[in-house]
Amino acid sequence: MTVTDPVRVLETLVRCPSVTPEEGGALSALEAMLKPLGFSVERMVGREPGTPDVENLYARRGSDGPHLMFAGHTDVVPPGNEASWRHPPFAAEIEDGLLFGRGTVDMKGGIACFIAAVARLVEKGHALPGSISLLITGDEEGPGINGTEKLLAWARERGEHWDASLVGEPTNPDALGDMIKVGRRGSLTGRLTVTGTQGHVAYPHLADNPLRAMTAMLDALMGKPLDDGTDLFPPSNLEVTSVDTGNTATNVIPESVSATFNIRFNDIWSAQTLKAELNARLKRAAADDTLRPGRDAARFNVEWLGRASPVFLTRDQRLSGSLAAAVEAVTGKVPALSTTGGTSDARFIKDYCPVVEFGLVGQTMHKVDEHVPVADLETLTEIYGHFIERWFALADAR
Amino acid sequence: MTVTDPVRVLETLVRCPSVTPEEGGALSALEAMLKPLGFSVERMVGREPGTPDVENLYARRGSDGPHLMFAGHTDVVPPGNEASWRHPPFAAEIEDGLLFGRGTVDMKGGIACFIAAVARLVEKGHALPGSISLLITGDEEGPGINGTEKLLAWARERGEHWDASLVGEPTNPDALGDMIKVGRRGSLTGRLTVTGTQGHVAYPHLADNPLRAMTAMLDALMGKPLDDGTDLFPPSNLEVTSVDTGNTATNVIPESVSATFNIRFNDIWSAQTLKAELNARLKRAAADDTLRPGRDAARFNVEWLGRASPVFLTRDQRLSGSLAAAVEAVTGKVPALSTTGGTSDARFIKDYCPVVEFGLVGQTMHKVDEHVPVADLETLTEIYGHFIERWFALADAR
Repeated sequence: MTVTDPVRVLETLVRCPSVTPEEGGALSALEAMLKPLGFSVERMVGREPGTPDVENLYARRGSDGPHLMFAGHTDVVPPGNEASWRHPPFAAEIEDGLLFGRGTVDMKGGIACFIAAVARLVEKGHALPGSISLLITGDEEGPGINGTEKLLAWARERGEHWDASLVGEPTNPDALGDMIKVGRRGSLTGRLTVTGTQGHVAYPHLADNPLRAMTAMLDALMGKPLDDGTDLFPPSNLEVTSVDTGNTATNVIPESVSATFNIRFNDIWSAQTLKAELNARLKRAAADDTLRPGRDAARFNVEWLGRASPVFLTRDQRLSGSLAAAVEAVTGKVPALSTTGGTSDARFIKDYCPVVEFGLVGQTMHKVDEHVPVADLETLTEIYGHFIERWFALADAR
Repeated sequence: MTVTDPVRVLETLVRCPSVTPEEGGALSALEAMLKPLGFSVERMVGREPGTPDVENLYARRGSDGPHLMFAGHTDVVPPGNEASWRHPPFAAEIEDGLLFGRGTVDMKGGIACFIAAVARLVEKGHALPGSISLLITGDEEGPGINGTEKLLAWARERGEHWDASLVGEPTNPDALGDMIKVGRRGSLTGRLTVTGTQGHVAYPHLADNPLRAMTAMLDALMGKPLDDGTDLFPPSNLEVTSVDTGNTATNVIPESVSATFNIRFNDIWSAQTLKAELNARLKRAAADDTLRPGRDAARFNVEWLGRASPVFLTRDQRLSGSLAAAVEAVTGKVPALSTTGGTSDARFIKDYCPVVEFGLVGQTMHKVDEHVPVADLETLTEIYGHFIERWFALADAR
């Protein structure tokens, strides 16, 4: 197999059934491809009580700076009902110029293109003045506990430092070259519980229906926009994801009701200032007696679930500029610099070095019949190649 | 056993474990007591597919009019954990002037007092100018399908007509003589389902969160009072009893959410006009885009659950007047004429004749250690006796 061809590399990776958290042979396949290119390869297993062990891989070529790191994951989401697929999800079959398989765009395809790009530079005898590394996890689609975060800490302990990172996640909404991601909104999740007094619906004065206060509080959470957005961020947004009471007796006023909500927030906020704002809104709504005339303030509690993901924005012009220039040189398109979308492992990497994200077109990710146009693989390989050359050239020029 | 003593009658009834829908010997005990008093007694079994058969009893003394009917039930709610009771729930033990047992107030006690009152009149040789009947069901605490409603229809088919009815449910909040019930609010239950578009919280523009429209609709249901009440009815009241989404993924906007709600309504409304008002409110709220800027009207559906209980008010002065006068004569208190509280079998009887309700103090009903003061049994027996005499006297006078 020639690793300069991203299609061959991707076929190999797709045929490894690395459904999260299984390694499925994918990291071993990478190792076999990277070593001949001059990479030293190490495997690291992430462990945490109560979660499955996860295999990860770190490969580096070169020992000097500047140091460019490519980050990605070989684990994939489950294929669902395999019978629904036009082609078996782990067969990597090509039909009409489309390569079908789980992980083709998210994101074995991005890894394949990066390896092919490096292999071509190596084949050309291009002297890269510094180091390139690949930081590949098997826990991006799972809980995200035993993957990138632990792998970064492990590498840092071994003395690894990076000057910039490119994450190969699918970032393009419609066509290759649409969008580079230069940051991410933060994410905060809370659970609101309102407690009233249970009773019979025929005697509402003897009860205190928590759904009255809850309605006012949901209105307070969603009613007024949090902000209008910033130069590179859309407005922060709150969505209530579930309201649950579990009361099956239609003649009984329930004792309590809970709601979960999630906020994706921009760089106007930190998790802390946002919590303060939301607590203030809830406190005001709990005291508002419009829906519960003459009542005292409602009793409520907010529990913040999990860790908040911090907001971040990469303002490294050399990194995003090199990437944008490479995209334009290959596709003729000026990519949008965006901060939209969900969280990614870039949220961990940003604590170590500037990070941007660019990969394939995301439309079929996580779906049945996930597939990538073979032509896109060639285009992305060229973009990655241009990017690597430009980034190192700018590093040289400093 | 002397049936002129309500305590002896009640002991006999409590010792029949007639947990709904079981007859438990209670109707047979009644039959054995009523026949010697000159009642002809018939048993009728209510049957309906999918529900347990239920035994009922109809007893009549006399064949002419006017005809006064006493209605009640011998079935009781389950005792719960019997070990929690101070005295066994079916032992009818007396301690410190209190008779303990399931059904003592709801409502074997009311039946015992009525039988004792009739027995005393019979013993006195009082010539009652007309008929007295007892319409006793074993399905009041259960689904209420094979009981009073069927028994009334069955009796009507056999030519029974009544001029007035007294239901012996516990009506007094604190002390005997507090309250006569002369009507009941109607009850209507609905389930509202709002359907949106599922999606990822990070891409809210690609989804349509049904919890936004639901919040506006709950506010519309609860926000504006339905009315201010009428002369004998409190304001109509709506309580949302449950809101449920069942979405456990905090990063997913749910597709739909449901809410159940119940309205207790006065004689300003019928179930039909109320449904129209609520539908109009919901339609307006669904079209309001305050919480969902720029969106089309939300899709929603309202399902009306079960049968609505109609509102009713008994304006029969002879019936409520006789009863109020009897209460005042015995207790010295002027009872309130009330329409508060939950539904009762009076909602079926009101289609046949004027109906009022008066019985014991309800405080311990449905609870562990349900009990009645022995003194209250004597007082209620006297009230019932006075009432019977007055009602027939007024009938005579017409």
